[in-house]
Amino acid sequence: MASHPVTELTSPSSWAMIEDKFSRYAKETLAKLITFLEEEVRPAERLARAQLPNDATRWQTVIPVIEELKAKARKLGLWNLFLSKAYYPEHGVPLTNLEYAVMAEIMGRFGHIGSEVTNCSAPDTGNMEVLARYGNAEQQRRWLVPLLNGEIRSAFAMTERFVASSDATNIRTSIRQEGEEIVINGHKWYISGAGDPRTKVHLVLGKSDPNNSNAYNQQSVVIVPADAPGVKVVRHMTVMGYDDAPEGHSEIIYDNVRVPLDNLVLGWGRGFEIIQGRLGPGRIHHCMRSIGAAQMALDTMIQRVTDPTRKTFGKFLYEHGTVVADIAKSRAEIESARLLVLSAALQIDKLRPKGAMKEIAIAKFVVPSMALQVVDRAMQAFGAEGLSQDQELAFTYANIRTLRIADGPDAVHIQQVGQRELKRAPTLAKKTAEAKKKEAELFNRHGSKLPQ
Amino acid sequence: MASHPVTELTSPSSWAMIEDKFSRYAKETLAKLITFLEEEVRPAERLARAQLPNDATRWQTVIPVIEELKAKARKLGLWNLFLSKAYYPEHGVPLTNLEYAVMAEIMGRFGHIGSEVTNCSAPDTGNMEVLARYGNAEQQRRWLVPLLNGEIRSAFAMTERFVASSDATNIRTSIRQEGEEIVINGHKWYISGAGDPRTKVHLVLGKSDPNNSNAYNQQSVVIVPADAPGVKVVRHMTVMGYDDAPEGHSEIIYDNVRVPLDNLVLGWGRGFEIIQGRLGPGRIHHCMRSIGAAQMALDTMIQRVTDPTRKTFGKFLYEHGTVVADIAKSRAEIESARLLVLSAALQIDKLRPKGAMKEIAIAKFVVPSMALQVVDRAMQAFGAEGLSQDQELAFTYANIRTLRIADGPDAVHIQQVGQRELKRAPTLAKKTAEAKKKEAELFNRHGSKLPQ
Amino acid sequence: MASHPVTELTSPSSWAMIEDKFSRYAKETLAKLITFLEEEVRPAERLARAQLPNDATRWQTVIPVIEELKAKARKLGLWNLFLSKAYYPEHGVPLTNLEYAVMAEIMGRFGHIGSEVTNCSAPDTGNMEVLARYGNAEQQRRWLVPLLNGEIRSAFAMTERFVASSDATNIRTSIRQEGEEIVINGHKWYISGAGDPRTKVHLVLGKSDPNNSNAYNQQSVVIVPADAPGVKVVRHMTVMGYDDAPEGHSEIIYDNVRVPLDNLVLGWGRGFEIIQGRLGPGRIHHCMRSIGAAQMALDTMIQRVTDPTRKTFGKFLYEHGTVVADIAKSRAEIESARLLVLSAALQIDKLRPKGAMKEIAIAKFVVPSMALQVVDRAMQAFGAEGLSQDQELAFTYANIRTLRIADGPDAVHIQQVGQRELKRAPTLAKKTAEAKKKEAELFNRHGSKLPQ
Amino acid sequence: MASHPVTELTSPSSWAMIEDKFSRYAKETLAKLITFLEEEVRPAERLARAQLPNDATRWQTVIPVIEELKAKARKLGLWNLFLSKAYYPEHGVPLTNLEYAVMAEIMGRFGHIGSEVTNCSAPDTGNMEVLARYGNAEQQRRWLVPLLNGEIRSAFAMTERFVASSDATNIRTSIRQEGEEIVINGHKWYISGAGDPRTKVHLVLGKSDPNNSNAYNQQSVVIVPADAPGVKVVRHMTVMGYDDAPEGHSEIIYDNVRVPLDNLVLGWGRGFEIIQGRLGPGRIHHCMRSIGAAQMALDTMIQRVTDPTRKTFGKFLYEHGTVVADIAKSRAEIESARLLVLSAALQIDKLRPKGAMKEIAIAKFVVPSMALQVVDRAMQAFGAEGLSQDQELAFTYANIRTLRIADGPDAVHIQQVGQRELKRAPTLAKKTAEAKKKEAELFNRHGSKLPQ
Repeated sequence: MASHPVTELTSPSSWAMIEDKFSRYAKETLAKLITFLEEEVRPAERLARAQLPNDATRWQTVIPVIEELKAKARKLGLWNLFLSKAYYPEHGVPLTNLEYAVMAEIMGRFGHIGSEVTNCSAPDTGNMEVLARYGNAEQQRRWLVPLLNGEIRSAFAMTERFVASSDATNIRTSIRQEGEEIVINGHKWYISGAGDPRTKVHLVLGKSDPNNSNAYNQQSVVIVPADAPGVKVVRHMTVMGYDDAPEGHSEIIYDNVRVPLDNLVLGWGRGFEIIQGRLGPGRIHHCMRSIGAAQMALDTMIQRVTDPTRKTFGKFLYEHGTVVADIAKSRAEIESARLLVLSAALQIDKLRPKGAMKEIAIAKFVVPSMALQVVDRAMQAFGAEGLSQDQELAFTYANIRTLRIADGPDAVHIQQVGQRELKRAPTLAKKTAEAKKKEAELFNRHGSKLPQ
Repeated sequence: MASHPVTELTSPSSWAMIEDKFSRYAKETLAKLITFLEEEVRPAERLARAQLPNDATRWQTVIPVIEELKAKARKLGLWNLFLSKAYYPEHGVPLTNLEYAVMAEIMGRFGHIGSEVTNCSAPDTGNMEVLARYGNAEQQRRWLVPLLNGEIRSAFAMTERFVASSDATNIRTSIRQEGEEIVINGHKWYISGAGDPRTKVHLVLGKSDPNNSNAYNQQSVVIVPADAPGVKVVRHMTVMGYDDAPEGHSEIIYDNVRVPLDNLVLGWGRGFEIIQGRLGPGRIHHCMRSIGAAQMALDTMIQRVTDPTRKTFGKFLYEHGTVVADIAKSRAEIESARLLVLSAALQIDKLRPKGAMKEIAIAKFVVPSMALQVVDRAMQAFGAEGLSQDQELAFTYANIRTLRIADGPDAVHIQQVGQRELKRAPTLAKKTAEAKKKEAELFNRHGSKLPQ
Repeated sequence: MASHPVTELTSPSSWAMIEDKFSRYAKETLAKLITFLEEEVRPAERLARAQLPNDATRWQTVIPVIEELKAKARKLGLWNLFLSKAYYPEHGVPLTNLEYAVMAEIMGRFGHIGSEVTNCSAPDTGNMEVLARYGNAEQQRRWLVPLLNGEIRSAFAMTERFVASSDATNIRTSIRQEGEEIVINGHKWYISGAGDPRTKVHLVLGKSDPNNSNAYNQQSVVIVPADAPGVKVVRHMTVMGYDDAPEGHSEIIYDNVRVPLDNLVLGWGRGFEIIQGRLGPGRIHHCMRSIGAAQMALDTMIQRVTDPTRKTFGKFLYEHGTVVADIAKSRAEIESARLLVLSAALQIDKLRPKGAMKEIAIAKFVVPSMALQVVDRAMQAFGAEGLSQDQELAFTYANIRTLRIADGPDAVHIQQVGQRELKRAPTLAKKTAEAKKKEAELFNRHGSKLPQ
Repeated sequence: MASHPVTELTSPSSWAMIEDKFSRYAKETLAKLITFLEEEVRPAERLARAQLPNDATRWQTVIPVIEELKAKARKLGLWNLFLSKAYYPEHGVPLTNLEYAVMAEIMGRFGHIGSEVTNCSAPDTGNMEVLARYGNAEQQRRWLVPLLNGEIRSAFAMTERFVASSDATNIRTSIRQEGEEIVINGHKWYISGAGDPRTKVHLVLGKSDPNNSNAYNQQSVVIVPADAPGVKVVRHMTVMGYDDAPEGHSEIIYDNVRVPLDNLVLGWGRGFEIIQGRLGPGRIHHCMRSIGAAQMALDTMIQRVTDPTRKTFGKFLYEHGTVVADIAKSRAEIESARLLVLSAALQIDKLRPKGAMKEIAIAKFVVPSMALQVVDRAMQAFGAEGLSQDQELAFTYANIRTLRIADGPDAVHIQQVGQRELKRAPTLAKKTAEAKKKEAELFNRHGSKLPQ
C-alpha cells in the first residue's frame, strides 16, 4: 500500500484515502508526471528565470527552456490533463476532478512552470473549457485547437478598473452589435496572461443588454483577437511588486474594438452563465496548486533549518524557539487542507460543480490563507533571503495572496458558506421539536418533573 | 450516492470520501446507531441529568434511564462497537477503525451518554482492549466478561499527584512482589471512572523495577479490585468546576494494597508496552467524539442565531457582526478536522497504530483546539445561558479542554510531529543535490551562466 | 524612579507612563494596598475556600476570614477605594479613575477576595454609585450607608431569562404603580450576589411604561429588599461548572413583589439613564481586574515551568516546546492591554465616561480575550492540576469568560468601535480631496503627467 | 485638552497619556511637522514615484521633489529630529526618545518620504549616531557633517550572504591592518541604501581579531568610501518583488578594499559595542514608523469601504461580512501597540537603552506583526488594487515584513523576553514560600486543617 511515488511528495495518509478512487491510467499518469517534474522541470526552474530578461524585452520573451519542456511533456502524454474526457470527449483525457486535483498539487510544487509545461495554466485552462463547451466549430478550429496544442495562449478579460467588479452586475464594458459586427468598449485591468507575446486571443466579458430586468442576462462574452485594432495594453499591473512577466496582469482599454458577429460565445446574454461554469473547478485547481506550493515551502524550510552551515549560537535553526512547532503546525495544516480540497474535488465528480458549491467555497477561503501562513513561516526561517529573488518564497507568497481576492474575495465565500449553513436551521428546529416531545413523554414515564 | 443518514448529521462530502470503504454491516450498523441515538438517546439527555442528585449521593447513583438505554442498545446490536473482530476475534465486531471512527463521532454528538449506552466509554474501552489482548483466561473471565456485558465499569490508574507523570519514567507508585502477593503503594489522581459505584476494578500502573537500566522496563500493570483493602478514594477532582459524577476523576491512595500474583497483567516490566498499545486508537476515538461535540455545538448555535424570539435591535442574531463568518469558519474547521481524523483512522487500519503515529499525533493536537474554538463560539452566541448548566456547551468545553492534556499534552504531540518531519531532511537534501547537478548541466547546455 | 512597590507586581514601564499622574495620597494608598494584599490576603486565600462548605449550607455562609480581613482593610483606609470624591464628595476617596484602575489590577491578582475585603466588589460598587448619585436621603440612609460600611451586600437585577436582554428594550419585567405601592413581576437570572446571605437589597430594572414611544424612557429602577414577599430565588446558575457561592448568580422570580413608592430610584422612566451611567467605569474595573488575574496566572506559570520537581525527560518544563515563547507573548499581551486600559481610565478622568466610550469599548472587547489566552496557557503548563480545584486558574478562566458576555457581548463593543471609526470617513475624504488638488498643481509645476 | 493636531492623526487617548511629558518645543515641532507633512509631502508622494524611472537609470536618480522638500523641511527646523541634544549636544535637537517616537509615527504615515525629507531615514540615522558618538574629529568633519546636512547618504554593511549573520560571531568579513592601511575583504548583502547615488560612505563591520577568546571583541567597524577601489555592488536584492530604488538593498563584495588606518571607528575590537549601541532606539523608531504605516492603512481602508462608487450587491463594502469588525480590531491593535512603543521610548529616556531592553524587545516582536495584519486587511478591502502599484499598501507590507527579520528575527526577541521573565522565578518562589508560612499559621489560628 501507499507505495506510489506520490506518497513521497505529499502524504501516505491522504493518498490512502483516495488511492482506490484512481484508475490505472490516472495512477500511471501521476507517476509519470512526478518523474518528469522532478527530473526535468526542477533543474530548469532557475534557468527559466535566467532566460527572462530584466529589461522591457521581458514582455516579448518566449522562454526557450519552457518551450523545450512543453515538447517533452506533450510527447510523454502529460498534456492538457485538466480537460476531462467525461465532459470534453473529443479533446479530453480520462481523468476525474479528484485525479486531476492531485496532479494539480504536484504541479503547484513547481511554481508557474509545473502547470505551463503541461499546458495546464490558468487562464488558458478555463478558456479552453469555455471554448470546448460553448464554442462553435469555427471558434474551436481557430482558437481552441492552437490552445490545446500549446501554440498560443489566451486571456479572460473580466475585472474592471474603477469598478467593484466582484459584483458582476457592476460591469461597465459595453458590447453591442452594429450590423454584422460587435463593438467593444471598456477598461479592464488585472487581465492575466495578456502580457505574453504568445497570447493571441482575449475572451471579453461585457454588458450587451444593460437594461435587461434580469441582471444575470445583461452580460455577454466575445472573442477578441489580441491584435485587433483598439486593443490597447496600457501597462502591466504588479502584485506585491512582481510583474509576473511574461504573462503579466495587464491594464487594457478596449477602444471601439470591432469583431465579427461570429465571435459571440454561446449567445447574447449568456455571459453570466459562462463565467459561472468557468469558475468552479478552476477554484479547486488553484487551491491544489497552493497546497503544492505550501508543501514545497515546508520542504524548503525543513532543509534550511537542518542546514549545518546555518547554525547560530551553536545550534541548528530548528533547535531555536518555535521552529519545530511551526513545522508541525504547517504539516498538519497542509494535510487537512489537502483532504478538504480532495473531498471537494470528489464532490464535483459526484454532483457537478453546482452540487459542490459549499465544498468549493470552503476550500476557496481556507486554503490560500493556510498556504500563506506556511509560506510566511518558511520566509521567516530563511531570513532576508526568504524575501529575496533568490528564493521562490516571496514570489509564491505574492502569487497566493491574489487568490484571497481573485474569483471572489474570501468574504464572499465565507458569507456564502455561512448562509448555506443557516439553511439547515429549519431541519434542526424540527428535529429539536420532535425530541422535545419525546422528552416530555420520557420524563412523564420516569415520574420526573420536566425542567422549564 | 450519499443518501445514507450519516450525511444529514455530518457532511456529504466527507462521507463520499469513505463510503466505499464501509462494509454493508458497517453501513447498516451506522444507520441503526443514528436512529437509536436520535430517537432514544436525544430525548433522554436531560432526564439523565435530572436523575443524578446534586448532593453527595450522586457518587452512589446508577442513573436509571442510562441502564434502560444500555439494554436497548445491546438488544439492537449497538454494543462494544469499539472492539474490532480483527484483533479480538472472540468478542469483537467486524468494524475497522475507520468505520468505528464515524460511529464515535456520532456518539460524540450526545455527550457522555452516546458512548456509555453503547458500552463504548473511556476508560472502559481501553481497559477491555488491554484485558482482551493481554489478560489471561482467568483475568478475562473475572473482569473482561462483565465489562463487555456492561455490568461493571473500570478505571486506569496512571496519572500521579506531585509528579510530572506525562513522562512515564517519573512514575512513583511502587508495585512489588511479596511471596504470592503483589503490594501496591502509590498516590494517583485524575483517575477517571473511579467514582462510579459500578466501577469494580482498577488497572494500576506502577514501578516494579525502578532500577532497571532500561527506563521502559521499569513499569508493570496490576489488576486491583476497587474494593480491595487499602484503596482509598481521597476526593473527586474537578475539571473547570465539573465533577463529572458519577464517573468522576478521583484522587486515590493505594496504601499497601495486596492482590494475588495472578493479578499481574502480561508480565513484569511490560507496563510501558501496555500503555503504549492502549493509547493509539483511543486518541482517535477521543478526537472523533470531539468532532461530534463540535458539530453538535454548531447545530445548536445555528438554531439559536435563527431563533426569532432572540432578536435584538430588530435583527436576528445571525444578522449581527461576525456571526455568519463564525459559522462558516466553524463548518470549515469541523470538516477539515473530520477528514484528518478519518484519514488517521484509515492509516491505523492499514499500518497498525505504530505506522500511523504521525497521523494520530496530528489529530491529537489539532482536533481538541479546533473543537474548543467552535464550542466557544456557540457559547458566545448563547450569552450567559451558554455558560450555564442549562446548555451542554460549557460542560462540553471543560470536557474537551482535558483532551489537550490527557494522553500527552499538545506540546508533546507537536514536538513529535515536528521531529518526524525533520527526519525527511536527508531525503530532501539528496533530491536537491541531484537537481542541482542536472541544473548545472542544463545551464551549460543552454549557454547560460549558473547563478552563484 | 520606578521604585514604587507596584513596579514589582506589574511593570516598571507602564508605571513610568502614569507615575506623575498619581497624587501622593494615591501612591501611598497603593503601596499600603499592595502590602496588605500580599501579606494578609495572599495567605488567607485557601483558608477562605476551606471555610466555604461544599454542601447546601455554602449559601448561608459568611466566611470568617473574609470578615476579619475586611475589618483590617477598613482600619487601614483601604476601603471603598472605587468611590471617587470628585463625584461623591461626602463618601468618596480622592482617587481618579486612573489611580483606582491600578488598584483594581492589584486587587484582581487576588481573585474575588482582593476586591471583597476592600469593599470594592461588583455588583456592590455599581449599586453604591447609583445610590450615591441618584438615591434620595432616605434611600441612602437605609441602603447606601450599610453598603459603604460593608455590613450588607446587594444585587442588580437586569438580565432576564428567555429574553435577549442585551437589548434593554426587550426587558419584560413589569414595574407598575398601584396606589402608594410599586408592584414588580418578572423573571430574572444571572443575578450576581443574590445568593449571599449578606445581600439585603436588589436594584431591579423593569418596564414601567412599555408603550412609551421613546424606547429609552420605558424602564425604571426600583429598590427591592431581598426578603420582600414574592422574591423567589429559584436556583443558582453555574458558570462553566462553578456556582460562585456564596454570592452566586441566581435565577429569581419577582412574583407580585410590592414595595413603597419611595423605593423608586431617580424617577419614572429613568432606568435606562441609570444603567448607562452605571456601566462605563465598571467595565474598566473589570478589565483591570482581569489584567491582574492574567498577571497572576503568568507568575504562577513561571513558577511551575521553573520548578525542578516538574522536570520531564530530564528537562525543565520551560525547556520544552513553545513554553518560553508563550511566556514572552503573555508578557507582551498583558503589558499592552494594561496600557490600553490605563489610557481609557485616564480618558474617563478627562472626558467623563461619555467622552471615553470608544476607549472603554476597545478595552472591553480586547482585555477579556487576552486574559483568557494567558490563563489558558498557564492551565496548560500545569496539566490536569491546572483544570482542578487545587489551582485558581480554571476558576479564573470561567470568571473572565463571563466578561465576554456581561455588560454587552464582545460583538456589541466591536461593532460600536467599528462604527465610530467609520465616522472619521468624511474628514479623511476631505483631506484626501485637498491633497489631490495640491498634487495636481505639483505635477503641473514639475512638468509631469498626473496619473489617472 | 487633547487639542493638539496630533490627536486628529493618532488618538486622543494615547496623546493624553504623554502630553504632559512633552516640552513646549516638542509640541510646537510636532505641530509644525504635521502641517508640513500633510500639506507639502502628502501631495508629493505620487510625484516622487513618477520621478523615479522604471529602467536601470532609477539607480542613478536623485528625485527632484524630494530634494525640494528637504530644503523646505530644513528651513522649517524639521531636520535631524532623531538626534537628541541630550547625547549629542553639538548637533542634536532637544527632543526625548518619547517625543521623537511620536514624530517617527507621524513620518511613518508617509512611507519612506516622511523620514527622508526630514533627514531622519535609516540607515543614515544610526550611522550619524555612530559617527557623532564614536567618530573622531576628522571622521566627523568628513562624513558626519555632510550627512547631517543631508548632502550625502550612507550604508551600514553588516549582513552577509551565505552566513547566519544574525549571530554576529558568524561574521566572515575580514578587516586587517597592513601598515598604515586597513584591508577589507567580505561578501555582504541586503546593504540598505548602498544603491543610492547620494550614498558616499559605508560603515563596514567585520572581524579584525577572529581568534580573540572573547567572541564580542573580534569585530571592528571601518569607514569605507563608497567609491573606494574594490567596492563592488554586485546587484540589488529585492524584498517581495520591490527593489526599493534608489536606496535599494545591495549585494556588495569588498574585494581587497584599502582605507587609511584613520578610518577605524572607536578602536580595534569595538565593533560589537558599536552595533549594540546603534540598535536599541533605532528599533523603536522602526516600530513607531510601522504604527504610522498601519494607521495610514486603516485610514485608507476606511475611505475605501465607505466609498459610494465601490458598492457591491447594493451595499457599501463596510456593510458586508466582517469589515466593521476588522476595522474595530485594527483600531484596537494600533492603539495598544502605540502605547507599548511609547512606553518603551519613555523607558529608554529613563534608563537608557540598556535598561529598556525588555520593552524594546517586546515592541520589536509585537509591532511589525500587528502592522502587517492591519495592512493586510486594508489590502483585502481594496481587492486587486490593494496589491498593485497604485496603492502604497503592498509596498508597505513588504517593507514592514522585513522588520520581522532585520535587527534580529522575531524569535530572538521572543526568546529574550521569555528568558527575562523566567528570571523573575526566584523572587516569585520566595514570595510564595513566605505566603505559605503565613498560611500555615492562619489555618492553625482558625482551627482549620491545612490542605496537602
